[in-house]
Amino acid sequence: MNQTPDPTKSDATIGIDVGGTGVRAVAVLADGQRAGKVHRAPLKSRERSEVLGRIVDVVAQATAEVSGTVAGIGVGLPAFLELPEGIVRLAPNLPELNGWKAAEELETALRCPVAVENDANAAAFGEHWLGVGAGRDPFLLLTLGTGVGGGIVLNGEVLHGRRGMAAELGHITVYPDGAPCGCGARGCLEAHASATAIVRMFMEETARMEEAAFREVYGPREDVTAQALAELAARGDTPAFTAFARAGTALGIAVGTLVHVFDPAAVALGGNVAAAWDLLFPSLWEELLARASLSLRDGFALLPASLGSDAGAVGAAGLAWRRVQTA
Amino acid sequence: MNQTPDPTKSDATIGIDVGGTGVRAVAVLADGQRAGKVHRAPLKSRERSEVLGRIVDVVAQATAEVSGTVAGIGVGLPAFLELPEGIVRLAPNLPELNGWKAAEELETALRCPVAVENDANAAAFGEHWLGVGAGRDPFLLLTLGTGVGGGIVLNGEVLHGRRGMAAELGHITVYPDGAPCGCGARGCLEAHASATAIVRMFMEETARMEEAAFREVYGPREDVTAQALAELAARGDTPAFTAFARAGTALGIAVGTLVHVFDPAAVALGGNVAAAWDLLFPSLWEELLARASLSLRDGFALLPASLGSDAGAVGAAGLAWRRVQTA
Repeated sequence: MNQTPDPTKSDATIGIDVGGTGVRAVAVLADGQRAGKVHRAPLKSRERSEVLGRIVDVVAQATAEVSGTVAGIGVGLPAFLELPEGIVRLAPNLPELNGWKAAEELETALRCPVAVENDANAAAFGEHWLGVGAGRDPFLLLTLGTGVGGGIVLNGEVLHGRRGMAAELGHITVYPDGAPCGCGARGCLEAHASATAIVRMFMEETARMEEAAFREVYGPREDVTAQALAELAARGDTPAFTAFARAGTALGIAVGTLVHVFDPAAVALGGNVAAAWDLLFPSLWEELLARASLSLRDGFALLPASLGSDAGAVGAAGLAWRRVQTA
Repeated sequence: MNQTPDPTKSDATIGIDVGGTGVRAVAVLADGQRAGKVHRAPLKSRERSEVLGRIVDVVAQATAEVSGTVAGIGVGLPAFLELPEGIVRLAPNLPELNGWKAAEELETALRCPVAVENDANAAAFGEHWLGVGAGRDPFLLLTLGTGVGGGIVLNGEVLHGRRGMAAELGHITVYPDGAPCGCGARGCLEAHASATAIVRMFMEETARMEEAAFREVYGPREDVTAQALAELAARGDTPAFTAFARAGTALGIAVGTLVHVFDPAAVALGGNVAAAWDLLFPSLWEELLARASLSLRDGFALLPASLGSDAGAVGAAGLAWRRVQTA
């Protein structure tokens, strides 16, 4: 794809994924091969200067592994972005970034063309480029973590909508009178299928247990995590199993709607919670079949994401290539 | 857009809208001006030969009004289509068309390039080209009639999905345990906001009335239509008003989901039921604000469609231009 004058050297882009607690970077060649390992740096604070400083650090580390030149840099941010300007409109977990002219300041700091993107969109682009979404279009990714994010790839491009705020798939309504969501509405997918929601549903399922009995089986309530519940559910714990099954049903309702809206080639589940695929899949698929059986014929695929926690950085590198190649 | 060698003559495309009971056609110039009036022909049967025959009739009538040549023909069909082949996969209201190689047979019969499209998609394209969606992208149209259809225009193109079955917006889930839908699922938008659903909800609202009292006020139950209920509601009839308000709430849930998924510039309501805009809007907007207020800022528009029952034919003519110009 990219012209490399010296065949012994390979140009690369560097993809960055900025999370609430740290940043990671990886250099990727135009053909998708990684040019080095994933470099990580924790955030010591949530200041803009700290975020920018750690990005500069991991870019330097990743650059050292590139034999050719760095053609561009892609940055996935946990934020609503105004596009094409690349301004952070709202970063719920890194509020210091609100209003940040990210694209402009990063280009100045890194002296390189920079593509900024919402992190879930970058992950969807990464999975479509080099992961489970390859060759599948339309491709939708749901990222199940503390919240629920989403990314949509249509005709090989990230769907941005009017202002870059499309694919907020965590805020699809699944139960109109359901649980309150952080966004202010009720019954959003995020309120029924995130790690937070799974813990809440587990607490509902165990509400009748006496406190002493609960602590004996599960330990202190405040220490319960979705990850611990996944292990319990896999070992047969009924309340934990039911919490995941309820999340699967909510996902089935949302995926049914998405199937009718996009007629997608594939929908993938990523994020930490999706590691519990075997716990989510049965109720998800049952619900989806009941809602969209006709549309599932002839090759639709529901799949676990395949790039794990690198999807965002890899996708950001791919978006940097896209930017360089179409400039 | 199109080169016209003789400036006194103007080439046109002809757009056809095939409904369950008749076909209509209109000739449209490349700049969107109509080259003649809308020609209609009722269907005497639902045979394929009758549908094809009436299409040929109205095309001949529309062609007679074109001063230049007919550059192409677009046909909107009330069907799921396999694209790009242009084969009718399923036509719920014209089952004789199932399996019809529509694009191929229409090109043979009309001796002209033919673009086939789902009717609601054609209407969305028409509204985006010449109606309420002009200059608004992404643009979504919900068509509220006996059922609920939808069309989505993204970057100026109809969203088709993997096999042409995208934008089945009537089958977005609004109430997971809601009313049974013709598709086999429960709680689809169509089961809560179509003309059929409005009549059903009115019957629920009047379920406690004695039969004699009901007939005195509303006439025979089997004669109640959504159109009659709209008139009653506008005059202050509470059960009729409530039926429309409930439909508006269901629409608000669905539009909220669509706003989070697409970040659209506009969502429009078309079809016969949308004529009752004033009855639907208050509860729709209230629900939408509760679900997606952040996403509604800075210029989102919820609007009534503006091309009325011509949207499908006009859109089909536009799609024929698109096909000719990109061929």
